[in-house]
Amino acid sequence: MSEYDTVSAEVEHEEEIPEDHPRYEDLLTRHRIERGVEKGITHLQGMHAEGRGSAFDYLLGEETIPSAVEAERAAAAHLLLADHPVLSINGNVAALVPAEMVELADVVDADLEVNLFNRTPERLEAIADHLREHGAEDVKGLEADARIPRLDHQRAKVDADGIYDADVVVVPLEDGDRAEALAEMGKTEIVIDLNPLSRSPQVAEVPIVDNIIRAVPNITEHARDLADASGEELEAIVKEFDRKRALEAAEERIRSGL
Amino acid sequence: MSEYDTVSAEVEHEEEIPEDHPRYEDLLTRHRIERGVEKGITHLQGMHAEGRGSAFDYLLGEETIPSAVEAERAAAAHLLLADHPVLSINGNVAALVPAEMVELADVVDADLEVNLFNRTPERLEAIADHLREHGAEDVKGLEADARIPRLDHQRAKVDADGIYDADVVVVPLEDGDRAEALAEMGKTEIVIDLNPLSRSPQVAEVPIVDNIIRAVPNITEHARDLADASGEELEAIVKEFDRKRALEAAEERIRSGL
Repeated sequence: MSEYDTVSAEVEHEEEIPEDHPRYEDLLTRHRIERGVEKGITHLQGMHAEGRGSAFDYLLGEETIPSAVEAERAAAAHLLLADHPVLSINGNVAALVPAEMVELADVVDADLEVNLFNRTPERLEAIADHLREHGAEDVKGLEADARIPRLDHQRAKVDADGIYDADVVVVPLEDGDRAEALAEMGKTEIVIDLNPLSRSPQVAEVPIVDNIIRAVPNITEHARDLADASGEELEAIVKEFDRKRALEAAEERIRSGL
Repeated sequence: MSEYDTVSAEVEHEEEIPEDHPRYEDLLTRHRIERGVEKGITHLQGMHAEGRGSAFDYLLGEETIPSAVEAERAAAAHLLLADHPVLSINGNVAALVPAEMVELADVVDADLEVNLFNRTPERLEAIADHLREHGAEDVKGLEADARIPRLDHQRAKVDADGIYDADVVVVPLEDGDRAEALAEMGKTEIVIDLNPLSRSPQVAEVPIVDNIIRAVPNITEHARDLADASGEELEAIVKEFDRKRALEAAEERIRSGL
């Protein structure tokens, strides 16, 4: 895709990317994913997936659309109401928003659990280390002492006291099979995905069609804002959110935004 | 993006990908690009660019739309009419369609020239070798004894008896600055790009909005079909092609196809 390639993301440190650059977020994203691949955190396929995401983000106008704001607020309410919220971390999530996920977990008192599509002990460790470098104290996903029903062996692995036990899970950039299986377990799923038509947002209780580097800090901000809200207020926000309308609004924006 | 990730492109050899798989082309593309990165042919950013392309291809319906058929036929006519046609090869092109580019060059009697956004001697050599393994006899781009005006040093390098001298150039997956500079040199540009709004197809005489793995064999087929056509017939095909309508049709398909 030509337009992007005129902008090089090749800087040593992300601080070198000028914040006022019109494509700042895209450059930052590419830079972080590339470093993730180099550090063994992100699978090469993750670079490809991120490219796909960037095309949808481009069509969305590279901004958080109003329906996504509502979804992010509903996500914050769900997380605050949860008995045991868990944030699922894969290689792209770890590369893109490590500090942001640690912060969100802290604000809503959630667990962080590493979960990989291409699971190897090396990548699990690299991601857990990366999260610890960004402030995580407890990282789950290494025990893998429970299984999600109806998934093949590697994809099914979760921690018994993590995702397996969770009532609310945030699964950003999750694959469709796994998102479906988690929904079938009765969990309240919050999915972050830039393609409103892919299966994960379609099966999610709260589909957030937004770039993860915008979405996660937004959820955290809403959670801080709602910290003193009553259970009733939080329930009202959850109830008011219309998942179908949010998906339609995102689709409409992608169509018309072109 | 969830839907894609449920399908693994991780096979040792591309022959292992079942041809009747509903996502065959996408799997093949990802497999070839991943191998390209591993072999030092494709830059890591190329994996990202390919991911973006796959999102647009998904929105196009992953098929060659009628306006692309016309563009591919016009491209064949231009190449057959040319005095000196050159096919430009970058890291993604080399990874995705090496044999197909060699075949097209053979059928229309064009030169192959390596041209890289992230230019290093190692990648130049790796790509030239890769093309030779796929049947190329003469590979240009290594001399770099001429410059495209108004581009920075590295991006400006071309061969004096290659792209610099060409009247018709095929620049698949080209960056916008370079596509613009080549157009300003008065060359007839044939661009293959899945985003109809990016600058390269916008400045091209013949914008082909199609996946390169479909487009190149299609152009070759048209060229074979037109091998005995008269100059007048070829001129008529060139004249009949409406670049603006082709770009609009692609945009319309992406909008409505969602």
